Amino acid sequence: MKDTETLPPKRIVIVGGVAGGATAAARARRVDSKAQITILEKGPLVSFANCGLPYHLGGEIAERKKLLVATPELFWSRFRVEVRCGHEVTSIDRAGSTVFGMDHATGTPFQMGYDRLILSTGSEPNSPSFWQEADNVRHLWTMDDLDDLLKVVKGRGVTRATVVGAGFVGLEVAEQLHRLSCQVTLIQQIEQILGPIDRPFARIVENHLKEKGIDLRLKTSVANLNVESGRVQSVELTDGTVLETDLVVVGAGVRPRTKLAVDCGLELGPCGGVRVNEFMQTSDAKVYAVGDMIEYTHGVLNESTLMPLAGPANRSGRIAGAHAASGKSDPMGPVMGTAIVRVFDLTVACTGLNQRSLQRKGIPFRSVIIQSPHHASYFPGAQSLHLMLHYAPSDGRILGAQCVGGDGVDKRIDVVATAMRFDGTVRQLAQLDLCYAPPFGSAKDPIHMAAFVACNDLDREPELAAVDLDCQALQVLDVRTSKERVEIPLENSISIPIDELMDRWDELDPGRETIVVCHSGKRAHIAACWLQGHGFGRVRNLTGGMSIRSLLSNVAGHSVAGS
Amino acid sequence: MKDTETLPPKRIVIVGGVAGGATAAARARRVDSKAQITILEKGPLVSFANCGLPYHLGGEIAERKKLLVATPELFWSRFRVEVRCGHEVTSIDRAGSTVFGMDHATGTPFQMGYDRLILSTGSEPNSPSFWQEADNVRHLWTMDDLDDLLKVVKGRGVTRATVVGAGFVGLEVAEQLHRLSCQVTLIQQIEQILGPIDRPFARIVENHLKEKGIDLRLKTSVANLNVESGRVQSVELTDGTVLETDLVVVGAGVRPRTKLAVDCGLELGPCGGVRVNEFMQTSDAKVYAVGDMIEYTHGVLNESTLMPLAGPANRSGRIAGAHAASGKSDPMGPVMGTAIVRVFDLTVACTGLNQRSLQRKGIPFRSVIIQSPHHASYFPGAQSLHLMLHYAPSDGRILGAQCVGGDGVDKRIDVVATAMRFDGTVRQLAQLDLCYAPPFGSAKDPIHMAAFVACNDLDREPELAAVDLDCQALQVLDVRTSKERVEIPLENSISIPIDELMDRWDELDPGRETIVVCHSGKRAHIAACWLQGHGFGRVRNLTGGMSIRSLLSNVAGHSVAGS
Repeated sequence: MKDTETLPPKRIVIVGGVAGGATAAARARRVDSKAQITILEKGPLVSFANCGLPYHLGGEIAERKKLLVATPELFWSRFRVEVRCGHEVTSIDRAGSTVFGMDHATGTPFQMGYDRLILSTGSEPNSPSFWQEADNVRHLWTMDDLDDLLKVVKGRGVTRATVVGAGFVGLEVAEQLHRLSCQVTLIQQIEQILGPIDRPFARIVENHLKEKGIDLRLKTSVANLNVESGRVQSVELTDGTVLETDLVVVGAGVRPRTKLAVDCGLELGPCGGVRVNEFMQTSDAKVYAVGDMIEYTHGVLNESTLMPLAGPANRSGRIAGAHAASGKSDPMGPVMGTAIVRVFDLTVACTGLNQRSLQRKGIPFRSVIIQSPHHASYFPGAQSLHLMLHYAPSDGRILGAQCVGGDGVDKRIDVVATAMRFDGTVRQLAQLDLCYAPPFGSAKDPIHMAAFVACNDLDREPELAAVDLDCQALQVLDVRTSKERVEIPLENSISIPIDELMDRWDELDPGRETIVVCHSGKRAHIAACWLQGHGFGRVRNLTGGMSIRSLLSNVAGHSVAGS
Repeated sequence: MKDTETLPPKRIVIVGGVAGGATAAARARRVDSKAQITILEKGPLVSFANCGLPYHLGGEIAERKKLLVATPELFWSRFRVEVRCGHEVTSIDRAGSTVFGMDHATGTPFQMGYDRLILSTGSEPNSPSFWQEADNVRHLWTMDDLDDLLKVVKGRGVTRATVVGAGFVGLEVAEQLHRLSCQVTLIQQIEQILGPIDRPFARIVENHLKEKGIDLRLKTSVANLNVESGRVQSVELTDGTVLETDLVVVGAGVRPRTKLAVDCGLELGPCGGVRVNEFMQTSDAKVYAVGDMIEYTHGVLNESTLMPLAGPANRSGRIAGAHAASGKSDPMGPVMGTAIVRVFDLTVACTGLNQRSLQRKGIPFRSVIIQSPHHASYFPGAQSLHLMLHYAPSDGRILGAQCVGGDGVDKRIDVVATAMRFDGTVRQLAQLDLCYAPPFGSAKDPIHMAAFVACNDLDREPELAAVDLDCQALQVLDVRTSKERVEIPLENSISIPIDELMDRWDELDPGRETIVVCHSGKRAHIAACWLQGHGFGRVRNLTGGMSIRSLLSNVAGHSVAGS
């Protein structure tokens, strides 16, 4: 290191400016003020706000220029980072430490040597089998996509729009097209929207979409697009339906863009992303990769995973930039899959694993669902939220969390994600010292409430039952009021309102296995404790109560007549 | 345990229904469905929403009944907990396991035996030396206080109000009186409002109060209240000012109400609260104490501390209830002093220790202050917030945090409080996987930004300087634009805007110790890295930048002409 003054400056070349790449460049400069740093970007823009694209489509972000995060001029004046837009790297000679490519502005090839190379080629949207090139069949992943889409939307009257894929981007696009007064049909191949969200919470969002007038079609997919004169006229679904449409936007997920990495022999991981170590070094220590193209370590599974999200992309870029420049940096932390989306008046967010992933991985888990106002119920404006936790039956370690509601959803998931970063348990969650004043929370925050219930479950005080339990052979006690039972009926249950239970519990059979139900699970807990303490055999509290069970249309056993 | 069926039910007596007491009763019932549980409450209400009182004063919570959390009838029907209001316990015979007291409704004494006793006598407001009994001199701590205060406010024209004490409750009361169109004078003995908040952030709130028309008077106190015909006519301050007033509300802190505990010989802790173990047992294992009257363990200091807040009160009640009923429970977790208050359009929150506490305890620390939008800046409605972290220079352990701004302040403090629960470091904070979509945050959340800067500081890439540093003998480089320098001037500094620095840095003297300044510290970081990398001696970034320094009126050295 002592000879650095006499060495030529280190050459750091970054392929791709998208989130991680631009961050890596700026970080590398701060760590090594003498390095020669170049970003080669095949597109016209060094960086743009990918996550903001849907919001400009519908005009919620009014100005296009707001999405342009940084310019080549800024990179030069502020960071002495040279940005070459329109420069596509087409191959990498690792032995010769040189990249080769094409300058699209001049149509001439170029080559550039490097001491350290950082790949940030991002991801690209999937085009399903029905995809056809047509003016009005579009993805929304780049500024070009946005501009093309806006041309369609503004150029001709788009009154009927079809969005294929009800993931995060699909939902954002559907909402923004609705803002533009389109009749929006949203098509999802599987039986629920939002794959990372468990079914009951997905149902809440689905109902909200329908209330807002979105024509949601689950368990169906596109068989064919009928194109005439270069434009889709109608969409043919696998169930035979034909929908006339002016626009098709496809949000069918993304895949890592790895061709460049694969072609030069860099190793991929098990999920098809580039394999990197904790400093973002690929199988070639002089070559780094960041962002959507790589595989991260999942904090719960301790396994490789794809995670095409802006947060990890930025953090990985920061680490790669520092390490490429100096040979050292803090290691990359685990990702938790923390994600959030606003869907009209609702917000839904998640972190860690969902039920499906836990089952697939064979990880034992238990689950709690609570409903709670997002701040003191007596303070004006309290909005109800649902919070779900999955946790290990052995030690209460938190495995995943989901939240759906209005304000304050992001806060709860961020708190749980933080606890999970430290392998936190539900017992520790129950003891968190969180902010409280009436406009912001409750002395018992929803986080505490969920954790309390989980602790009770672990201590069998009493146990929880899954919200979709088949209750057919069981004694079901409904402790809601008669008014509530009219609103959401529950067949084949015994009705004793909670405030009468302590006079009337001898009406029940203590010898039968019993499930107690109320609207959210709170009163059922009190009742279940009472029965358990009075010698009833197995007593369980149906977690989430009728507020959740009524959303599930096909629960076995006692049917929910009101659903 | 096998003989419990034949034993008489356990008698659990709870003295005081305020937050912790009522929670303890409900929890004890759930854990032991056969215990005989009684709450003895000297006041007329078993429980009320203490934290909501100021908001009903100003009408923001419109209905008084919203503040009444639970009734004796509900406790009986739902929990089989007997509530005796108007029953004041006046002494405890621990040897005889009996409490003695007075039934104020009938004027007759009573006594009651217990197997386990839970004390929840709460806290009482301090009455400073100037205090005089008068119709219009009031505390605001109980429903009675609220009703009395409302009588004064509504009964006669209150146009001028004086609030003494600018802590959390004082600020809430001042805002609510302002809502009632009072001219409010707010008097604070020390040189800043909000003792737990560090001076620069307190200044932000002070300026906001002044903008809203609150007559804020710091570093003064009340010498005398001039009372005529049972009413205060004017307030005489120690600086000689006399202020006519229609109402005086005193918010001068609270102290644990421990007389009952002391009289029966229970041990107090070093701060004057009742000493309890992790299960809330006092020095007599059959007697528990909860809430404002006890001392908690502080999570950062690992020392006893008073913490008259609703969150810990509730959690301690829950633990005491379970343990009194069953002899077991999870232990109480540490408190962090997490607190929040809304002050008109601002929110300010804190957790852990502030600068004053750290200095007093002799704990080495470093500090970072950042300014950041609360969500993606390109998304409409982004509000600026300031976030401060204090951390250990040795290992980066987080010691405290404060945040001031609009939306999202609560989230950031809750996340940091959660990390602190696990002895988290700024390096771990930098790697948290938090929610991100444009309406909720940024790919680099303010949490990450603050942690990044703290990590840089620990790695001397480069060091931070305290915002109130005396810069007199130093080379001060201001990298703001000339427009910004006009808005907030900084004397005796060299001006080189950041985007010109890389062409002009040779105008600086590399031999001099250098401080770099911008508006928030972000651009100054880039500049400081550059200079450090180019052989300058000690270079530091003034944390928080001019956005904070301009708030401090008496910074030594380079004066801030615009402040």
